[in-house]
Amino acid sequence: MMRETIAIDMDEVLADTLKKVIFRFNEESGETVTAEELQGVKLRDLHPQHVEHLSNLLLDRDFFRDLEVFPDAVRVVRRLTESYDVYIATAAMDVPTSFDAKYEWLLEHFPFLDPQNFIFCGNKGVVGTDYLIDDNPKQLAAFKGKGIMFNAAHNINEEGFERVRSWKEVESYFFPAE
Amino acid sequence: MMRETIAIDMDEVLADTLKKVIFRFNEESGETVTAEELQGVKLRDLHPQHVEHLSNLLLDRDFFRDLEVFPDAVRVVRRLTESYDVYIATAAMDVPTSFDAKYEWLLEHFPFLDPQNFIFCGNKGVVGTDYLIDDNPKQLAAFKGKGIMFNAAHNINEEGFERVRSWKEVESYFFPAE
Repeated sequence: MMRETIAIDMDEVLADTLKKVIFRFNEESGETVTAEELQGVKLRDLHPQHVEHLSNLLLDRDFFRDLEVFPDAVRVVRRLTESYDVYIATAAMDVPTSFDAKYEWLLEHFPFLDPQNFIFCGNKGVVGTDYLIDDNPKQLAAFKGKGIMFNAAHNINEEGFERVRSWKEVESYFFPAE
Repeated sequence: MMRETIAIDMDEVLADTLKKVIFRFNEESGETVTAEELQGVKLRDLHPQHVEHLSNLLLDRDFFRDLEVFPDAVRVVRRLTESYDVYIATAAMDVPTSFDAKYEWLLEHFPFLDPQNFIFCGNKGVVGTDYLIDDNPKQLAAFKGKGIMFNAAHNINEEGFERVRSWKEVESYFFPAE
């Protein structure tokens, strides 16, 4: 029997990208933004005068290399691989300087995944898996399978997708019997 | 109406990778391999004693940066974009040092393509386009849409896929009325 396939986004799903964005943004701009202020608000809208800092910090080739992994992500992804074919699908074309750092980050934290299952792409409308776990409503809307929205500050007001708030909730979604 | 989608491989489909492999292999090994000798035979099987040279030359971060584009590829891909959504799907995870060079090569030769349509992946079984043009029979077998085999020295004895021998033949396939 064919196993079902799950594609998992990286930024703000596996990796706490926002935490580092806020830290580096404050360093560069002198602001004191907190994660709480960004619930339902984008940093670029909160501080449009500092948009340039925001773009520049993502261009650092190592920005994505040392992001923290969200709690339970490693354990739950490993468990998913026992019953599903797991792919990583990241919109790396948005920040093409990030390819190497993202690849190395995946090898470090998810060494049990086959790199042949890594997808560095743009538009996820052509990711042909059964499920996509993503924080980006545009990607979930373009995706043709079953989209699952991973809760993130920027998407709290988005509706229309099943929402999970943690990797424990992802686990309950895919292993509901427990 | 939704446009049909086509994914196009890079190496030995858009880019004459083998030409540079042979040139660099001969430089490194002192052999005098020709393209004619490689019809239906892999270089690693023809010269197993030099397999290391072969692996090393692909690890050069710039190896993929200056490959020649096959005749008519730019013109035909541009024409395809008028009627189809065109994606580039390359098995970059085989050679993760190649990400930057492949991205820059695409921007140089196919500036009319949207980088959001670039897919750097491994297993193309999850590329969800309607068509895939590829030289690799394993990728074509894994792909779930309509696979089209682009003729290459290593695949001349493979059967089971529609075969195109040039970009002019790709053009005739997708624009048959002329």
